[in-house]
Amino acid sequence: MISGGGAEAAAEVAADLAASRLVPGAPGRAPGATPFGARLRAAMDDHGPLCVGIDPHDALLAAWGLPSTVAGLERFAATCVEAFAGRVACVKPQSAFFERFGSAGVAVLERTLADLREAGTLSLLDAKRGDIGSTMAAYAQAYLGEDSPLRADAVTLSPFLGYESLRPALDQAAATGRGVFVLALTSNPEGASVQHAMLDRRSVAGRVVDGVTADNAGARPLGSVGMVVGATVGTAVQELALDLAAANAPLLAPGVGAQGGTAESLRAVFGEALGNVLASSSREVLGAGPDVAALAAAARDTADRLAGDLRG
Amino acid sequence: MISGGGAEAAAEVAADLAASRLVPGAPGRAPGATPFGARLRAAMDDHGPLCVGIDPHDALLAAWGLPSTVAGLERFAATCVEAFAGRVACVKPQSAFFERFGSAGVAVLERTLADLREAGTLSLLDAKRGDIGSTMAAYAQAYLGEDSPLRADAVTLSPFLGYESLRPALDQAAATGRGVFVLALTSNPEGASVQHAMLDRRSVAGRVVDGVTADNAGARPLGSVGMVVGATVGTAVQELALDLAAANAPLLAPGVGAQGGTAESLRAVFGEALGNVLASSSREVLGAGPDVAALAAAARDTADRLAGDLRG
Repeated sequence: MISGGGAEAAAEVAADLAASRLVPGAPGRAPGATPFGARLRAAMDDHGPLCVGIDPHDALLAAWGLPSTVAGLERFAATCVEAFAGRVACVKPQSAFFERFGSAGVAVLERTLADLREAGTLSLLDAKRGDIGSTMAAYAQAYLGEDSPLRADAVTLSPFLGYESLRPALDQAAATGRGVFVLALTSNPEGASVQHAMLDRRSVAGRVVDGVTADNAGARPLGSVGMVVGATVGTAVQELALDLAAANAPLLAPGVGAQGGTAESLRAVFGEALGNVLASSSREVLGAGPDVAALAAAARDTADRLAGDLRG
Repeated sequence: MISGGGAEAAAEVAADLAASRLVPGAPGRAPGATPFGARLRAAMDDHGPLCVGIDPHDALLAAWGLPSTVAGLERFAATCVEAFAGRVACVKPQSAFFERFGSAGVAVLERTLADLREAGTLSLLDAKRGDIGSTMAAYAQAYLGEDSPLRADAVTLSPFLGYESLRPALDQAAATGRGVFVLALTSNPEGASVQHAMLDRRSVAGRVVDGVTADNAGARPLGSVGMVVGATVGTAVQELALDLAAANAPLLAPGVGAQGGTAESLRAVFGEALGNVLASSSREVLGAGPDVAALAAAARDTADRLAGDLRG
């Protein structure tokens, strides 16, 4: 399963697909052909429910012996692609760490997304975009458009302007076989001040769940409109009466692993939706770098453990 | 007041400043020397309370006879800088319309921000970023950092993860004499589902106002932590008991002008904070393009009208 360089790994994945795994929803299929939810389901079944972040912050660059420059960023991202492409369900570059280097950093992000695409590994761009009208449509075009230089398989979105304000991106994702992950219930201490707030007896998080549930209705094996739900939100899912399983949604969950999240607590948070959880991990895996084999092994170990903890 | 090209206008502004207007808070002062709020106050006093958007969406590019390409984008943005630099309080590029062209589009955004900086005109980048921890710090570095290629005088932020999650950007802005505008109460129909929601008898919008009020306490003549408050939110400000004047905050207000917003309705929404309103206008002004003189005249006319309507 684990091979040498990125190109080699990509070729191996391509060969695998051609030989035996050309099932609907297999990763590596062109967007459009198969909805994102189906592609993600297949990738999670193949590789385990792990999404590895590419989070090149200064401390991590330094730990890898890399400078905080565009060159350092480029080396970091290329190493991640080499280590993870073809080996995990999904890779999640964090846009902020590229944007801080300006257009040169964004050019590295473009290449990173292109390399993942070529390797047939699903990309989720963590950008938390959100706006209205023609501006939201422009973000949709930027990250979910068929010909955009920054297109990913999915992008994270922020619904402060209301879930429905994201409609241009929801439509664009549906049209191109891509996906979105909408912020719903996060575990940072400040998150509750917004997400637990109530209007007409429904919480802000609940309204996101309701919107996602409607948009994913009837999608098989899994909807393409995901949510971000922290693994360490405690009893909030029950208190806010969120039916995560009914949402039929991929659930991107930061906080599984290092920060807490035992198998038992995960079941308490996600319940019947446990099988739809895509655990997001950055520090735990990236700490094994910069050695490619060590990174790949850390990803493999983490994915295997998660596959046990998150068995639905 | 109105001169020919961008460089000429810039030279004129520089000369003006050197000659007579080197008051604290004058526009064109290096960030760090004077807080953003003071610089904005002076710019609004000089030029009127107008922030002109640079919103190069497809329809507008076409109306200006420009292609939907990086070259078209570049021409559009350069024309805007030529028309508006030195003539309005603030110019607001909309990041999404640059991001959709990938890193090449972001490079145009960099140049646009640099041109505005050189001309001594305040830039507000509309990016609505929001995240937590080291990621939020990276966004702060990207848009408010002293040496970042994409630095602006201020940036818009989205608080879905809680107002306090934005702290790294608030700190960075304070440290470098820059500003932020936090989404608070918007007039899009979907916005109320989040912003009107209540927790412990305070609305989500109210918590943003509370945080901004605390952060702007004691700042003279105006705080550097702004908010986005729609000009057409009707009676929501009263219903949610928002004391906008006490927030001592610049109030970026979309929807003044074309969409409604008579002098009377503006006073109803903003009350005693009317003098802190920075009206955001795109369509109304940009529709006069692509002729530079016509754009400059449209901006001038709009700013003059607003100065009357928004007299505090």
